[in-house]
Amino acid sequence: MRNLLLTIRYKGTAYHGFQVQNNALSVAEVFQDAVEAVFKKRLDIKGCSRTDTGVHANCFCISMQIESSIPCQNIVRALNVHLPMDIAVTNCRDVPLAFHARYSCTGKQYLYKILASDIKDPFLEGLAYQHRHSIDAPQLHRAAQGFVGTYDFTAFCSTGSKIEDMTRTIYSASVVQEGNMIYFRVHGDGFLYNMVRIMVGTLLEVSKGTLQEDEILDIIKSKDRSRAGATAPACGLYLDQVFYDDKAFMGE
Amino acid sequence: MRNLLLTIRYKGTAYHGFQVQNNALSVAEVFQDAVEAVFKKRLDIKGCSRTDTGVHANCFCISMQIESSIPCQNIVRALNVHLPMDIAVTNCRDVPLAFHARYSCTGKQYLYKILASDIKDPFLEGLAYQHRHSIDAPQLHRAAQGFVGTYDFTAFCSTGSKIEDMTRTIYSASVVQEGNMIYFRVHGDGFLYNMVRIMVGTLLEVSKGTLQEDEILDIIKSKDRSRAGATAPACGLYLDQVFYDDKAFMGE
Repeated sequence: MRNLLLTIRYKGTAYHGFQVQNNALSVAEVFQDAVEAVFKKRLDIKGCSRTDTGVHANCFCISMQIESSIPCQNIVRALNVHLPMDIAVTNCRDVPLAFHARYSCTGKQYLYKILASDIKDPFLEGLAYQHRHSIDAPQLHRAAQGFVGTYDFTAFCSTGSKIEDMTRTIYSASVVQEGNMIYFRVHGDGFLYNMVRIMVGTLLEVSKGTLQEDEILDIIKSKDRSRAGATAPACGLYLDQVFYDDKAFMGE
Repeated sequence: MRNLLLTIRYKGTAYHGFQVQNNALSVAEVFQDAVEAVFKKRLDIKGCSRTDTGVHANCFCISMQIESSIPCQNIVRALNVHLPMDIAVTNCRDVPLAFHARYSCTGKQYLYKILASDIKDPFLEGLAYQHRHSIDAPQLHRAAQGFVGTYDFTAFCSTGSKIEDMTRTIYSASVVQEGNMIYFRVHGDGFLYNMVRIMVGTLLEVSKGTLQEDEILDIIKSKDRSRAGATAPACGLYLDQVFYDDKAFMGE
């Protein structure tokens, strides 16, 4: 038995998130179809994360146990033949049997793309959130430093989440402008439901002036969802990097 | 009567080029629909160029004579409301009545995007040509210098073209690599039918080694279409910049 770590990249526009859904197309289902086409067997796969409808991934990790002697490079090629254009396998490696794409994960980086312009961009449909007001990127970068640290992020979690421990550590957060694009990147050990999108919605309140740039930490400490901003649209969000400890890759 | 110069940007995937076609959707037709919705009148429009099915434009210019007192900024906003997501008006200015988007044009720059990778990119579907072999960008840059100058470009024109004078001047050509993307940019006073795509197909022959990097000029001089490379796919091509002389913008 082998355990494979597959890295995929996908444009989420056509999918109801990664995880398999009843009555809605998911990335996992399409991926399993491709696996079945290649290995003639429907296999259980473990994703590193859930993602929402319309959310994209520059990098998303899947682990999968399989009886096969096909070399990794050929698995990449074969799966890509059977996957649609909006999902690509970018890498495949053998990992120990104990490796699990989700439980072995030690951190993730998300990227949120904002088009700060009153004119739409035909090449960014579904790929960035268009914000029709100007954004002061250095101001939002300063504000975003309030996210960094280990806190109970209840104020930045959509209600309905069943997770009990709301404590997460954010290692870094940045807001960078390139032309009329604003890039928010956040790296943490884990994220609550809608956490990044609520962070973005809160930064946009700072941009509007309805929240002060040093108010983020107060909002976190309040644990009050209503004090944070709205949940920014899914289309701007990309799972960007997935981190594992080197020891997760070492033999059992 | 006013004459307006409108700059648009479009993703060409869904369109059979810019110019109006019988029985096929064109950018011009959709643009005229938006004009009609805003001005309650179907107007004649002049495009700076024809483009092929699936070709994109970062910048495409249209001139249009109209009786209207609506300020330019409001025209941009109103047209964008009526245009689909894959076409955007990015600018509007008043120009002299004698101005014509095509006849006043003194030059154009095209951009051709190549994804040099054996793995597809979900975010570049229809937006770049995937070439599954490695490309030596500095080598192709040197080869592309053979295009620069004033020549009869018959060898770089698809047959079936009815143009009599095949002489064009290429001011500059460059090949630049960024990550696994290769960008070919070419600036000239005008381009023959499929000229840029044949230039790219010819550079890819240099990349494969079936043509030498100093052979471009010989091929031009041969006026023999069969000596140049294949016509590269439309999806990688972008009309990138359109040039006018300042005097074209001066009062009549």
